[in-house]
Amino acid sequence: MMSDSIFTKIIKGEIPCYKIAEDDRFIAFLDVFPIKKGHTLVVPKVQIDYLFDLDDSLLSDLMIFAKKVSQKMQSAISCERIGIAVIGLEVPHAHIHLVPLDTVGDIDFSQPKLQLSAKEMTEIADSIRIN
Amino acid sequence: MMSDSIFTKIIKGEIPCYKIAEDDRFIAFLDVFPIKKGHTLVVPKVQIDYLFDLDDSLLSDLMIFAKKVSQKMQSAISCERIGIAVIGLEVPHAHIHLVPLDTVGDIDFSQPKLQLSAKEMTEIADSIRIN
Repeated sequence: MMSDSIFTKIIKGEIPCYKIAEDDRFIAFLDVFPIKKGHTLVVPKVQIDYLFDLDDSLLSDLMIFAKKVSQKMQSAISCERIGIAVIGLEVPHAHIHLVPLDTVGDIDFSQPKLQLSAKEMTEIADSIRIN
Repeated sequence: MMSDSIFTKIIKGEIPCYKIAEDDRFIAFLDVFPIKKGHTLVVPKVQIDYLFDLDDSLLSDLMIFAKKVSQKMQSAISCERIGIAVIGLEVPHAHIHLVPLDTVGDIDFSQPKLQLSAKEMTEIADSIRIN
């Protein structure tokens, strides 16, 4: 049996997260290793390794969910645009990175991660949250 | 009136491209400034600036088109996974980067671009092409 990914543990409530949005099939929360302030992960609740292994219907609905989160981020965070990245080499549970961008170079995952306090993370999550 | 983006010029056939796949609404071709061999762009034919400004239906179908291209890339190119990126700060015409990845750091758009010959680009496009 496949072991629970860290995202599945978050979805089950076994690990806390700075939640942004959730419905019956998808969840969005702040990346705890952000490359930019407001860096958010959008995750299907079903534990499938790679984004393009989702069936067409789930893939479509995930993108529509991510679009809503992105629009809320764009209104809450000062940035030029919300960038999108799927790397698929880190956690074996499909996820979309939504990253506030000011320049093309901002979407570099090998750069040092930001060190934000729990208070800052809470404030950011509160500003983006979709009720 | 909005002027034609470089992608619209490619779609109209005014600028050549190393084409991978095309249907009535979408096109995929090699990025001529690749960060990795096989780096491909997936573009809706309608000239809309930002990916998340596409309506839900077109966004969904674009992702399903990109999934097909990605699967062909994965079988043609030696890599761990096909990464996905949307930056939205370069060309004002929505597009998805599909990038063959071996490490997380490979998806860095500020790194120097590869210099590939026309012969190499043609061979890569031929290996990925969906008829």
